Amino acid sequence: MVAPVPMVEILRGDFLESVHSGHAVVCRADGEIVEAWGDPHAVVLPRSSSKMLQALPLVESGVADARGLTGEHLALACASHNGAPIHVEKVNAWLKDIGCGDDDFRCGPQESRDDALRLEMIRAHQEPCRVHNNCSGKHAGFLTLSQHLGGGAEYCQIDHPVQQACLSAFEEVTGDTSPGFGIDGCSAPNHAVTLHGMARAMAFFAAAEEGGDTRQDAAARLRNAMMTYPELVAGEGRACTELMRACGGRVALKTGAEAFFIAIIPEKKLGVALKIADGTTRGAEAAIAAVLVKLGVLDPAHPAAQKFMTPKIRNWDGLVTGAIRPAEILR
Amino acid sequence: MVAPVPMVEILRGDFLESVHSGHAVVCRADGEIVEAWGDPHAVVLPRSSSKMLQALPLVESGVADARGLTGEHLALACASHNGAPIHVEKVNAWLKDIGCGDDDFRCGPQESRDDALRLEMIRAHQEPCRVHNNCSGKHAGFLTLSQHLGGGAEYCQIDHPVQQACLSAFEEVTGDTSPGFGIDGCSAPNHAVTLHGMARAMAFFAAAEEGGDTRQDAAARLRNAMMTYPELVAGEGRACTELMRACGGRVALKTGAEAFFIAIIPEKKLGVALKIADGTTRGAEAAIAAVLVKLGVLDPAHPAAQKFMTPKIRNWDGLVTGAIRPAEILR
Repeated sequence: MVAPVPMVEILRGDFLESVHSGHAVVCRADGEIVEAWGDPHAVVLPRSSSKMLQALPLVESGVADARGLTGEHLALACASHNGAPIHVEKVNAWLKDIGCGDDDFRCGPQESRDDALRLEMIRAHQEPCRVHNNCSGKHAGFLTLSQHLGGGAEYCQIDHPVQQACLSAFEEVTGDTSPGFGIDGCSAPNHAVTLHGMARAMAFFAAAEEGGDTRQDAAARLRNAMMTYPELVAGEGRACTELMRACGGRVALKTGAEAFFIAIIPEKKLGVALKIADGTTRGAEAAIAAVLVKLGVLDPAHPAAQKFMTPKIRNWDGLVTGAIRPAEILR
Repeated sequence: MVAPVPMVEILRGDFLESVHSGHAVVCRADGEIVEAWGDPHAVVLPRSSSKMLQALPLVESGVADARGLTGEHLALACASHNGAPIHVEKVNAWLKDIGCGDDDFRCGPQESRDDALRLEMIRAHQEPCRVHNNCSGKHAGFLTLSQHLGGGAEYCQIDHPVQQACLSAFEEVTGDTSPGFGIDGCSAPNHAVTLHGMARAMAFFAAAEEGGDTRQDAAARLRNAMMTYPELVAGEGRACTELMRACGGRVALKTGAEAFFIAIIPEKKLGVALKIADGTTRGAEAAIAAVLVKLGVLDPAHPAAQKFMTPKIRNWDGLVTGAIRPAEILR
């Protein structure tokens, strides 16, 4: 087992105050590792970084087309969104289209991350709904697929046809037999895999072409939906959204809880999977931005690159007290 | 340089999802290291864990007694409080007693961490004040000392008599020449030191006796104030407060930003200093609780020990999805 390697440094004044170590793999669709830091064979839970894998059965089954789902729906199915009005309204409309309501969701209620909506709801004494959960787009996809596959209301149970379809797609595209699963923040199963397997899956998404076989076509449509609607995949101010825009729509990005991040780079047919071992978001954001710069798909001078890769740290009075920067191996 | 060692594990289902590594030292007042994990010579910024050192000049100068400051004031001077009504009211009364107002503070405004007050202020469209800053008790102490020492309104400047007095006390009690400082979240200088120096300083606080020389008396009074008023040092629900109560008033505890923690154990005349290398609070809280259990001053079956050392992780729907536990070396 290879130890995680220092990837991101937290400076305060002249002092190195904290360090984030991790593992990362850059991979081709045939599984060849182009570059790796730390342990490519580390077993990880990719969390929300696996949402495009979990959305494959929705498209492959034909139910997405039968229900008239658009690119916006597919982007939301892959999203960890802010629960901003743009997300909540579109997911609620989707729910209504399939004849479902908030109570049909099996993700728990979560406070909106959109400042204006959050404050508005507090002032109106409104409790968060399940649709505000950052995973509600994925769950709208699960509900849609569930109507097609049957299996009843408890679509998050591991033996439900929806989750069995997700597991098959996950294992086939990662090329690994998953050693097991954990329960995610949204109550759905989340399957474990090696970091290498996850990077290989992302390379499959990178190389997939619309009009190819069913799986390729589904993967390409999901990837293209993410790149076309970056504001739906996360939201204003968030790393996924801003870095996808900074890459000029040429890269699909997706974060996951506990400091997971993936990148899908179609023009290079490369997939990236990254895990900061301590689970800290600021580390994963800085590290994925640094990898994108190293791969030549993100301009380090772009404001979004600076915001997430080399941000200044400010205190409660707005004074600059420190900075974040990639560690030597990612510079 | 010794690498940080794994101290805390984050589990999801059966999988080890994330790990927090760090350094810790248990030390006597004469500087003898009783036990160490990782690198005792790591240079650290102890952040708010140094507040009792920064409060020494307030007591030693005689101004605390001249102004009639009580144990509650001294506990607040050492606090990173929640900005709950209990803290805000007492700090505002202190400010008024010394003829100062919110604008005299040089800490920035910070939203209250007390849920009820925070929601009340949002609903009333009230902006946070500087008194809500978690460090406002320390700053009330700085303002009080500044009236005694002179030097003008900018008491956070490194060459101000208040900060020079803090630096002298810091270097004398840690036994180290500080290699420099960073600016803290509250805009005050925060001096760097080795972890060993910080643990030695905490052992001085552990061994100090009221009625001893001026410094010993001041250190003992500050330590006793922290142990007597744990609710003022942090607040309801917080690790410092709940773990001090769980130790039955026999230990003083203080966290610092970026995953610092200290413990002062008078009955054993021991000091503890701990830094989780990645800066994550959940790691520091679990690790300090585990060290206290190892030292025999915290019952691992106490609800507060379980809450911070071995908490269950729940998701948005309240399901248990994982757990936190000390790594092998701290079990």
